[in-house]
Amino acid sequence: MPEMPHDELALRRERFSAEAAPLNVDGIALFHSHNVGYLSGFAFVPTERPIAYVEAADGSCVLVVPELEGEHAATAGGVERVVTYDEFPGDRHPMELIRDVVHDLGLDGPGRRVGVDHNGYPPVLGYWGPPLSELIGSELVPLSRTLDRVMMVKSSYELDLLRMSSDWAARAHELLQAYTAVGVTETEVAQRASSDATMELARAVPGYSGGGNGSGARAGYRGQIGRHGALPHSLGESIRFEAGDTLVTGATAPMWGYVSELERTMFMGPPSDEQRRLFGHVLRLQDIGFDAIRAGEPASGADEAVRAYFEQEGLWDYWRHHVGHGIGRRYHEAPFLDRGDHTILEPGMVLTVEPGLYDPDWGGFRHSDTVVVEDNGIEIITAAYPRDLESLVIPL
Amino acid sequence: MPEMPHDELALRRERFSAEAAPLNVDGIALFHSHNVGYLSGFAFVPTERPIAYVEAADGSCVLVVPELEGEHAATAGGVERVVTYDEFPGDRHPMELIRDVVHDLGLDGPGRRVGVDHNGYPPVLGYWGPPLSELIGSELVPLSRTLDRVMMVKSSYELDLLRMSSDWAARAHELLQAYTAVGVTETEVAQRASSDATMELARAVPGYSGGGNGSGARAGYRGQIGRHGALPHSLGESIRFEAGDTLVTGATAPMWGYVSELERTMFMGPPSDEQRRLFGHVLRLQDIGFDAIRAGEPASGADEAVRAYFEQEGLWDYWRHHVGHGIGRRYHEAPFLDRGDHTILEPGMVLTVEPGLYDPDWGGFRHSDTVVVEDNGIEIITAAYPRDLESLVIPL
Repeated sequence: MPEMPHDELALRRERFSAEAAPLNVDGIALFHSHNVGYLSGFAFVPTERPIAYVEAADGSCVLVVPELEGEHAATAGGVERVVTYDEFPGDRHPMELIRDVVHDLGLDGPGRRVGVDHNGYPPVLGYWGPPLSELIGSELVPLSRTLDRVMMVKSSYELDLLRMSSDWAARAHELLQAYTAVGVTETEVAQRASSDATMELARAVPGYSGGGNGSGARAGYRGQIGRHGALPHSLGESIRFEAGDTLVTGATAPMWGYVSELERTMFMGPPSDEQRRLFGHVLRLQDIGFDAIRAGEPASGADEAVRAYFEQEGLWDYWRHHVGHGIGRRYHEAPFLDRGDHTILEPGMVLTVEPGLYDPDWGGFRHSDTVVVEDNGIEIITAAYPRDLESLVIPL
Repeated sequence: MPEMPHDELALRRERFSAEAAPLNVDGIALFHSHNVGYLSGFAFVPTERPIAYVEAADGSCVLVVPELEGEHAATAGGVERVVTYDEFPGDRHPMELIRDVVHDLGLDGPGRRVGVDHNGYPPVLGYWGPPLSELIGSELVPLSRTLDRVMMVKSSYELDLLRMSSDWAARAHELLQAYTAVGVTETEVAQRASSDATMELARAVPGYSGGGNGSGARAGYRGQIGRHGALPHSLGESIRFEAGDTLVTGATAPMWGYVSELERTMFMGPPSDEQRRLFGHVLRLQDIGFDAIRAGEPASGADEAVRAYFEQEGLWDYWRHHVGHGIGRRYHEAPFLDRGDHTILEPGMVLTVEPGLYDPDWGGFRHSDTVVVEDNGIEIITAAYPRDLESLVIPL
């Protein structure tokens, strides 16, 4: 298991404090699992039982968890004090305990400013409850964008996990490609590849954990087969491969909470001229995306550059989405490679680059690679997996 | 594929309108995937790209989706009008289009009341954006609890899907039990059982879809092995089975969005006297839960009855959580079998019954079955899977 550096959490809290300084808050109350996990080190799968991380400006902090997470939080969390409640909804709603904690840390009352990522616990599964603003007299200050900015830039520990994730995603993808054949179904192939890769992972990495963000090395098609691939987020699952299909894959492997993304366009047998033509465009579009990602430039730049190519080549009919997104604890997170996102790129940011073309007859064409922004250029951490056409044709 | 009755969506909307009548709203705007899917019939995996369902009191309704979901929404949704936006965040934030739709349906302005399940799109993945209250002048009326009440009572179509889910959960569980042996790891066993059961499912049910709520028949342990089982929501994944372990399983299979829950306590080899004693208590606790679930009685009754047994037998040290929860489109939903939930049980409600005992040395002891409330008593839809001790001992 990759050891978290002993100062990792302290550095995250320092970076967060610096970023949040202009907001002038007296403390914070966080409710989203990725935010709580990021600052406290406590990984968990969110349910309707509220979990909150409350921190005062003097650094004293408290995790509020249900009784059944108490032991786990006390051992896994990097927080001195864990407070538990009985149950949800319980004879006393858990938000009342959270209110007490906010109060005890001196954060409740007129003139006090409390930074929050949500006004109370968000509606996970069947949760219901009062907003925090009904329980305390302080002013609530939205923090989500501030947290997003801090989480955009990954530490070397986080980058190590993302590289491990890329390697295991590639292994699952390798098996997916090897098992794919005319006549079998995507379900069989995806299950077998994911299962075999996960078993290898469990053997190779003792103590492996997905960190509450799914589990195992996985690869599949999500229905993006033949003409179904024209729906980028198709939900079909039992499609049988046929000669001539264009395929779009997807692979990942959560490593202690961190995920990468690897996707490839493949062909069932020799591609037609039209398949070759669209594949060629997708390669050029992705190269344009790679080239436009530079520290100091806005995230929107890559989307604008890719859009210019769509315009120049008359490809708008095939366009469905922007170029990519940040990735880390969440499969999609800020910044977005989108013309509306003007975040200035910095070294340590991690992004997917995945412009796509979609044709109602031929299906989807998209590669996705995960890249790290560096001082000069990028590192493509999924680059070990080939992206050229010849490597991606399944023999009939 | 189980055919949705042609009037299913109309009946859901009627039941919702009746339940929401006292709120006197002029229309609604829904943002959570399970709520949107329930009323519109459009199943999707929520991302940072907002999706909204807006309906006026006259019944006219609109789905707002990103361009890449446009074709899918038009074919899958039971809604006449689908409006698409380019991208998120895009050069114009998608909430502005949602505001326009609310306005065009005559729902914007002082004096208008709009029911909402969240004040704008909830923070899924890396989403950020303005609350709806900043964009329209209407009064927002919280709707989540109203929707929860409607969704608690399942139609016969929904019950059919939940029964299918139970059957396939049982099949995955059967394989899990068969593959479990001393010396192998939970990862291997869970992967193999889930993979094999999913392939059977894909062959047996043509066109199978999980409906955006995960995919396939799955069974596993989630780290609840030996003393690790004392953490009810453990995240460990690579534990190797040893003689003497107490095991807690979990199995499910999403069917077009609907899930059941089946969990069993098992033993690696002949159980000790203490294991037998705790197992005996768990069986009695579950029977007490089953018996206390009666139409016309409050949901809290089952929790109170189970707590009385904990008290009477001096078992509080082993207590960690309430008796169970509603289940349907969400793995946990209202009502909760919890002393704080006074919902009156009605025929058609579906609940898990899963009181548990947790011992730091022996681990966790918990069965979970999914039951349907009937006019007289309950139907245990996971009952085909044995729950007696002899059936749940893994031979060494």
